[in-house]
Parts: sequence; C-alpha cells; structure tokens
Amino acid sequence: MSPGGTGPTTLAQLGEFALIAEMVRDLPAADDVLVGPGDDGAVLAVGGSVVVSTDVLVEGVHFRRDWSGPGEIGRKAVAVNVADVEAMGARPQGVVVGFSAPGDTEVRWTLDLATGLRSECATAGVSLLGGDTTRGQQVTLSVTALGTLDGRDPVRRDGARPGDVLAVAGRLGWAAAGLLVLTRGFRSPRAVVDVQRVPDVPYGQGAVAARAGATSMVDVSDGLLADLGHVARASGVTIDVETSLLEIGEPLQTVGSATRVDPLLLVLTGGEDHALVATFPVGRVPAGWTTIGAVDDAGPDGAGVLVDGSPFAGVPGFDHFRPGARR
Amino acid sequence: MSPGGTGPTTLAQLGEFALIAEMVRDLPAADDVLVGPGDDGAVLAVGGSVVVSTDVLVEGVHFRRDWSGPGEIGRKAVAVNVADVEAMGARPQGVVVGFSAPGDTEVRWTLDLATGLRSECATAGVSLLGGDTTRGQQVTLSVTALGTLDGRDPVRRDGARPGDVLAVAGRLGWAAAGLLVLTRGFRSPRAVVDVQRVPDVPYGQGAVAARAGATSMVDVSDGLLADLGHVARASGVTIDVETSLLEIGEPLQTVGSATRVDPLLLVLTGGEDHALVATFPVGRVPAGWTTIGAVDDAGPDGAGVLVDGSPFAGVPGFDHFRPGARR
Repeated sequence: MSPGGTGPTTLAQLGEFALIAEMVRDLPAADDVLVGPGDDGAVLAVGGSVVVSTDVLVEGVHFRRDWSGPGEIGRKAVAVNVADVEAMGARPQGVVVGFSAPGDTEVRWTLDLATGLRSECATAGVSLLGGDTTRGQQVTLSVTALGTLDGRDPVRRDGARPGDVLAVAGRLGWAAAGLLVLTRGFRSPRAVVDVQRVPDVPYGQGAVAARAGATSMVDVSDGLLADLGHVARASGVTIDVETSLLEIGEPLQTVGSATRVDPLLLVLTGGEDHALVATFPVGRVPAGWTTIGAVDDAGPDGAGVLVDGSPFAGVPGFDHFRPGARR
Repeated sequence: MSPGGTGPTTLAQLGEFALIAEMVRDLPAADDVLVGPGDDGAVLAVGGSVVVSTDVLVEGVHFRRDWSGPGEIGRKAVAVNVADVEAMGARPQGVVVGFSAPGDTEVRWTLDLATGLRSECATAGVSLLGGDTTRGQQVTLSVTALGTLDGRDPVRRDGARPGDVLAVAGRLGWAAAGLLVLTRGFRSPRAVVDVQRVPDVPYGQGAVAARAGATSMVDVSDGLLADLGHVARASGVTIDVETSLLEIGEPLQTVGSATRVDPLLLVLTGGEDHALVATFPVGRVPAGWTTIGAVDDAGPDGAGVLVDGSPFAGVPGFDHFRPGARR
C-alpha cells in the first residue's frame, strides 16, 4: 500500500485478504496474547474468568461519515466497548472487530479507520486480537472486548445498597452537547464535538473502583438517569442524584446559552459519554472519582432514581428501534 | 408477546428493550457463566486462557431471507463461529451476539431468529452470554464465540509437520452443493440445502483432536484447498490431499449429475461446511476422523497444497470484497 501511489483505491479492488493484511500489519504483541490474528481464533491468557461485552456501531445510527473521520469512528468503536468491560471492574485486555462495508468504500478511508481502532486500543491498553471483514450496504463495526477480573468478583449493577455513595469518573453531557451542535450544523465548541466523535473513557478507573470496593457500576451510554435506573431497579434501591455536585463544564454552558437547552439536562440525560458511575460504601470513594449522590431504600413507588429528592420530569433515554420514543 | 395476538408487529413498534427481554427470556444457566446478559458485560469462568473468534453474517452476502428461515439464519450464525473455537482445540463455552435490522423488520421473524440462536447454542453446548441490538439497513449478525483450552495449548495452523497425517471430521462439499441448487432455483436434494442453511459442525471434535495430539487444525469455511493453503504456508509444508480417500456423499453425486458440476470440485473447493481438518502424527488420528491425505516437506515451489501429488488447476476460494475474484 502506497498512499498517493497507484495501489487499489476501493475495497472491491483491494480484496478481503489484502485488506486484512494491511489492517493487522505489525500489531504490537502483548504478553497475555498467546495467539493473535490470523488463526481461527485468538487466545488470551486470563486470570480465571473473563469479562466479555459486544457493541455494534452502524453508519447513520451511531456515527456519520460527514461528522466523523474514519480514525475517529474506529477509536469510538473500541472506546464504547472497552468502557463496558471497565464497568464490570475488569482490566480490559483485548478486542475482536467485525467490519462490513460496501465494495466501493475507499481503501484509504478503511485503513484510516483501522489506524483509529489500533490507536484507541493502545490508549486503552488492549490488544487487537482478530476480526472478520465482509461486504455490507452500510459501514458497520461490531466490537467485542475482553478483560480479566484478576481474581476479583465482577462489579455488577445489582449490588448498590442503601447508605452507599454515588460517584462518577469521567465526563457527563459532553457527547450530547457535541451532538446538539453538530445537528444544528456547527462544529464548535470543539471540545464537546471531539467527545461526541470519540468518548473520553476513564480507562483504568473500572479496576480502581473495584479494588476500592464499589458495590455496583455501569458506564453511561444511554444517559446518567437512564443508566442509573438500571442500577436502581436491579439493586432494589433509590438512587438520589444531587445536582449541586454535578460539574457542568464550561463548554456545556456555552452550548446551553447558544441553543437554549439547559446544560443540566445534557448532564442528566445525555448518552455516549461512557463515563463510569459506581456506588461505594461511605468513605471508600477512590481518588479520581467525584461524589454526585447517595443510595437510599426504595421508596413507596419502588426502586428508581431521584434528582435532588424528587422524580425527574424529563426524558431519560434512547431506544434504537424507536428513535422518537423515550423510556 | 402473544404470537398471533395484538402485540407489536415490527421492531420499531416493539422497541429495543422489549426485544432484548424477549430474546433472552429464561436462558438456561450454565455453571461457568458467572454473569449472564443484562449487565455491561458477561463473565465467564475459564481455565487460564480463553479462545475468542468473531464472524459477521450479512443479509444478501451470507444468507438470503428467501432461502433461509430466521431460525436457520440464527443457527448458522452460531455454528460458523463456534466452529472457529473448535478449530483451535478449545471447548466452546459461550457467545455474544450483535444484531442490527431495519425498524420495519417483523418481531415474529426476529424472535424466530433468536430461537434459532438459542437452539444452536444448546446443540453446541454454549451459553448465550449477551449482545447488542441496533437499527441498520440490512439484517446483520455478528457473533463472537469464546471457549476454554482447559489447560491445553491451542492447536494453531502453523504446526503441521512432514510425516503427519491429514484428517477431517464433518462433511465437505455439502454446503456448496446446497448453494448450487438454490442458485438454480431448486430446493432439493433437501440434505444439501439443509446443510447450506445450517452447517453440520462436528461439535466436540476440536477438543478430541487436541487431546489426540493434533499438530494443526482449521475449520473449512472458504473451501478445503483454500483453508489447507493457509495451513501449508503457515507451517512451511506441502499438504497432499488424496482424492480416493474423500467421501463423495450420495446427494453430491445427485447434484453433480443434475448440474454437470464435478462433485469432487465441490468437495475440494466448496466452503461453508465448517468441517474440521487437522494434521496428526501417524497413528494418532482419533475415532470420528477420516484420513484424507498426508503432510510432506515443502517442494521446490515452496509450501502449498497438492491434490493426488499435483498442483490443483481449479479455483480454491472466495473473496468477500471481490466475489468474482479467486485466490
């Protein structure tokens, strides 16, 4: 492959096997990768049990080629999935990637996407273990991430207990703010647009939380209140978010002023940031985490989420098959 | 969900979360599944190292809704991927599934697909660990399978040694024969059409081969000669297939007569059967496996595959981005 040279331009010209060879060229070798790409499967050394999570990203649903470059799309695909492994309290180790695209997709674009995948793998400290490439009408990326618990118990979503403290690592509302400005045709503030394109996952904090004794944890993919709703119902508790403890970053205030959308709404309901939220026994919130609320007994209306002690009247999440519907 | 009742008919009406709830209802619980669907990730107990493999199946490329029912498509998606884990010599344990489909896809069709996924998981002895569902223009299934080596070394494709015996478990050429008759508008012989729709993977034989001392192994997805080519080149050997040892099943002869295609060509080059082929030291071929050739030193033209001692003149494989091209 010689960029700018006379090599094949489209995937149909390059072919599947040459594409794969380019995508995995000179992959770094980690000690825990016993077999890497090129065989029927990859083999990963793990400490007794393995955490696995999968996500599918579809063009036009999870990304748009006019909003994000291929490198950003590749990075996002890895980031959102590794965040799920972090949210189980595991140490992420590797990913496998399924890639489908039309035959007239440009090779250059595809290799830039592969570079993004590999770049985010390096940032997250995981190995690209293998994958599958095939034709499809839309660019679709399916990433499966694996990690080890290093002998610890997984941090599930059903372990929050009354008296626990609620804390967050990472940003909230930034990706939604970025989406808001992009949908209105703007490209700034750059900081929130960047986070919409590639979430700023707090890598390593999942295991930090687990070691600190987190009783429950999730990553924020659908929105803080929506995802905490899963935790509250699974744990049979009330989770009360205290808005005075939520950081509303300066770019969120800028977006709020420009769009007349309350930035607090972005923080409470915006998805795709892939921050980690966890509950901890009092006094166990580790460095790098910010307390934003508390866990109480389920109220008379059952388990659920409160905002400053009251039910939230807004719209907490997103349904992929009913983009207009809210749950 | 009441089939035939007044429930939602399309995925857009049902919604993502109700769909997931239906798809994972009453999943059987295996002892090695520490956390199943519903959290950020699943957790699987493994014996020190885990084999992982991923495959993407796209409507119109890997299956057609007019040729295969939803249950068959679901079963095939699991089977082809678990076959890769078998081919590493591992014991398959679980799968995660990414599913995308248009919003106007029928709920009934989708739940039948989920039933097929679960049915083949049961046949293969693996657990459905989790997944992700989203909208997309085409029905796309991405399956990632995991398995444990139970402390054994993986059986790679680079370990074949001169003097080894080549053997197969499972069928060859049947899926290609099924595709041939389907493309010509026929639905019989039923036996080969069935195998095209759902490959008959020799579950359990991967670990059997590993315990017997297999030196290399792959599953036949692209065609026997194409896949053995990978083994020969990775191992630096010549693999000689002896056609008199290949079983040409009765339905293949029927298809051959009807279509004037040499059934031996189907056996040598037909993909999608997901039989296992492995090399063993002499005398170590286990029960359930059939010897079909031998491994020699690389010849003057380098490593490669011979048929009855001579280079094969035909067309050995399939390239997803260049369906007309052959390698």
